[in-house]
Amino acid sequence: MKVAFQGEPGAYGEDAAFACFEGAGYLPCGSFEAVFEAVASGNADFGVIPIENSIAGSVYENYDLLYRHELHITGEYILRIKHCLIALPGVQMKDIEKAISHPQALAQCAGYLGRQNIQPVEAYNTAGSVKILKESGARDSAAIASRRAAELYGMQILEENIADHAENQTRFLILGREPVLPKGEAKTSIVFTLKNRKAALSQALAVFARHDIALTRIEARPLRGRPWEYLFHIDFIGSTSDDVSKRTLGHLGEYAMTVRVLGSYPRFRG
Amino acid sequence: MKVAFQGEPGAYGEDAAFACFEGAGYLPCGSFEAVFEAVASGNADFGVIPIENSIAGSVYENYDLLYRHELHITGEYILRIKHCLIALPGVQMKDIEKAISHPQALAQCAGYLGRQNIQPVEAYNTAGSVKILKESGARDSAAIASRRAAELYGMQILEENIADHAENQTRFLILGREPVLPKGEAKTSIVFTLKNRKAALSQALAVFARHDIALTRIEARPLRGRPWEYLFHIDFIGSTSDDVSKRTLGHLGEYAMTVRVLGSYPRFRG
Repeated sequence: MKVAFQGEPGAYGEDAAFACFEGAGYLPCGSFEAVFEAVASGNADFGVIPIENSIAGSVYENYDLLYRHELHITGEYILRIKHCLIALPGVQMKDIEKAISHPQALAQCAGYLGRQNIQPVEAYNTAGSVKILKESGARDSAAIASRRAAELYGMQILEENIADHAENQTRFLILGREPVLPKGEAKTSIVFTLKNRKAALSQALAVFARHDIALTRIEARPLRGRPWEYLFHIDFIGSTSDDVSKRTLGHLGEYAMTVRVLGSYPRFRG
Repeated sequence: MKVAFQGEPGAYGEDAAFACFEGAGYLPCGSFEAVFEAVASGNADFGVIPIENSIAGSVYENYDLLYRHELHITGEYILRIKHCLIALPGVQMKDIEKAISHPQALAQCAGYLGRQNIQPVEAYNTAGSVKILKESGARDSAAIASRRAAELYGMQILEENIADHAENQTRFLILGREPVLPKGEAKTSIVFTLKNRKAALSQALAVFARHDIALTRIEARPLRGRPWEYLFHIDFIGSTSDDVSKRTLGHLGEYAMTVRVLGSYPRFRG
């Protein structure tokens, strides 16, 4: 079994892949699109992609890729993100002038970096920044990444958990080529477009309340070529095999032009 | 009267400021936050900020700034974006190897640049990239910005309307220190958080359908420090001075922990 993730070995995406598929083979990919393609082509059996971070919000690119590709969501996983300040062995805190990392990680540690008078430098990946730092041999620089990335490259952790908000979590989705039938509490992700009717959005959303369905997420992405029309991504508690979910999706069809189920999958319980 | 916008003279934000406040004084600002601060401090009477693009989607930073600041939305404006490929006078199309612009503008012209074999180079601003190009004197490079930016810096337009999607529009909001009372068709922007109740989001959204109110936009932003809770931004057709809107907002209070009206303002009609 092979599981694709985006980033270098040591990336948070690989942590998620480890947690969801213990003992599998893992395939690092250069981009989120490459993760989708690896699963679609059969180079990987599953893929893991981040969809949302509790501080930064949605990973919009992945919402768009879910719509463009024909894969199924087969699971979700929530990872606690603990950023570490990482340097070459022997380097001291007082030597650090710059910190390399992904822009989102830098943003999540902006307060800490400001207080320490450390200048942020952008890189394409958190674990990749540790690799870059190791190869450069720079002793005035640190990288921001996970504890595992530090260990993997034989580097030193100067300080752990340096993000400005302690509660930093990322929700990952698992992608497969076939849908699953979840047992126990399930979540379902759908994407729909609206009919051109008065108050179509409020009427469509009211369908969920009428069937007493709990929504956990709503995300509107632009429909290309149709300004101010949207693709609505919704996650709700329930499985497409439940009668109430079936009735809700049927009812939604009164207001929606298109409805596509991206997947029903077990709800993550930490 | 002074109107703040983000970017250099010639920016699309300045186009929006021109259209909304003819003959005013215009104040270029280095960041969106600086626009909010200019209005709050009284350095400007109004500010214009982009909130959404019909291809790229929401400008999330500005949703977060609307929540963090105490300003009022007093209007909206929709600008058609027409990107031009701009070079120094006398330069020919065949000389162009690189194109400088804001990452979003580069992304919107990615297909065109690929076909022409032109390499994208990121800059912080569209009009700013014209200024950089002029100062550098580079004859192998172009900038991507508006017709007005080209004219302002005395540059040549090599090709007009180069974006991959013809229908490229940006919605701007006007910010002021005092709320307005719109006449005619109005839109209202609110932001709310939910009570901790079962199916609170679907119940809250159903309130709008029950009062037959049309939603035009919904955006969920993370609530910092409370993973998987959100600030919901909603735009609807109506004014807070209408009885039906008042009843709807009162009713919303049953499911919402906090509700704040960001503004009622005239709906833009092109």
